[in-house]
Amino acid sequence: MEFSSKLLENAVYEMSQLPGIGKRTALRLVLHLLGQHKDQTNRLSFALQQMRSELKYCKSCHNISDVDLCEICANTSRNDRLICVVEDIRDVMAIESTGQFKGLYHVLGGKISPIDGVGPSDLNIDSLVQKVLDKNVDELIFALSSTMEGDTTNFYIFRKIESAEITVSTIARGISVGDELEYADEVTLGRSILHRIPFEQSLKG
Amino acid sequence: MEFSSKLLENAVYEMSQLPGIGKRTALRLVLHLLGQHKDQTNRLSFALQQMRSELKYCKSCHNISDVDLCEICANTSRNDRLICVVEDIRDVMAIESTGQFKGLYHVLGGKISPIDGVGPSDLNIDSLVQKVLDKNVDELIFALSSTMEGDTTNFYIFRKIESAEITVSTIARGISVGDELEYADEVTLGRSILHRIPFEQSLKG
Repeated sequence: MEFSSKLLENAVYEMSQLPGIGKRTALRLVLHLLGQHKDQTNRLSFALQQMRSELKYCKSCHNISDVDLCEICANTSRNDRLICVVEDIRDVMAIESTGQFKGLYHVLGGKISPIDGVGPSDLNIDSLVQKVLDKNVDELIFALSSTMEGDTTNFYIFRKIESAEITVSTIARGISVGDELEYADEVTLGRSILHRIPFEQSLKG
Repeated sequence: MEFSSKLLENAVYEMSQLPGIGKRTALRLVLHLLGQHKDQTNRLSFALQQMRSELKYCKSCHNISDVDLCEICANTSRNDRLICVVEDIRDVMAIESTGQFKGLYHVLGGKISPIDGVGPSDLNIDSLVQKVLDKNVDELIFALSSTMEGDTTNFYIFRKIESAEITVSTIARGISVGDELEYADEVTLGRSILHRIPFEQSLKG
């Protein structure tokens, strides 16, 4: 791509550093900004810079927060002895939007993945283990994605806290609500039979 | 979407103002920036702001440029009496990358489109007409997209410069090089038969 302007080229280059944004998309986005009022570009730039420099992580659950202790951890009406372990903040948002969970979260910040160079020390595991060993937790719910890395991470944490003798559970895997059985993959269908629940219980959900 | 941070929410909101970027994509992009070094966000913000505030348009062809007269217009080895009329700067880049055009461009900045509220006065048409009437042009090539709006714009300009009696041409429409006839649409195929060229001429391209 040949640019008639260094300023444009630079803006397109920086934009194309974002994941999933190629050079052509970046050019389209940048030209869009050029066609809009100057304020829009300024607001975007300022919002990104302010977020990157001022954003904090909750000192308890490592969720993104504007204050030291996030809204969820600071909410005294929630059960602070029930902890849901998730990968990142998007999972917190997803679970919160269900309205089904009234405990607290613990955001690991990723999964153990040797292939990506992510070891246990790169994640917020120590503070979770400490919480459990300090007898501050009754139940831990693993809500990591159901991949090799997720399972490894679950198992690593489980081994670390085994001695504490608390309840450790994992979210249910099964056929999505509304899905046809014939299109489900075998592993999921197999698990949903293996972990079947009493019929009366299913009526409550 | 419920955010645990106003800073994050604001950044996601501004990002999602870009065309084709929804809330979910915006969140993914913003979280990506959070995971990278602070410098990346600063570079992106600065590049966008600098581009938006300092970018100029060439005073002759209205192409984007860092200086008053763009590189193409300033290049004395190009034929400045042959003008290719295009919609926007992406078209200039596309034609430049073919290496087949040695004249200058005129960037209209859009097409006449009453439905989008774009009239002739919103485009760089007057300066083009002036160039022609000042007898500075031998040939005008219309290279607008082949839509109702493109055709309207071509015709509007044509009527304005008719009296100047210069050569006015339009880029050839036809089957793409390498395409199978059976998959071409009828209009394109029809035009490519109507505007057939001598076989010997096709050997040169």
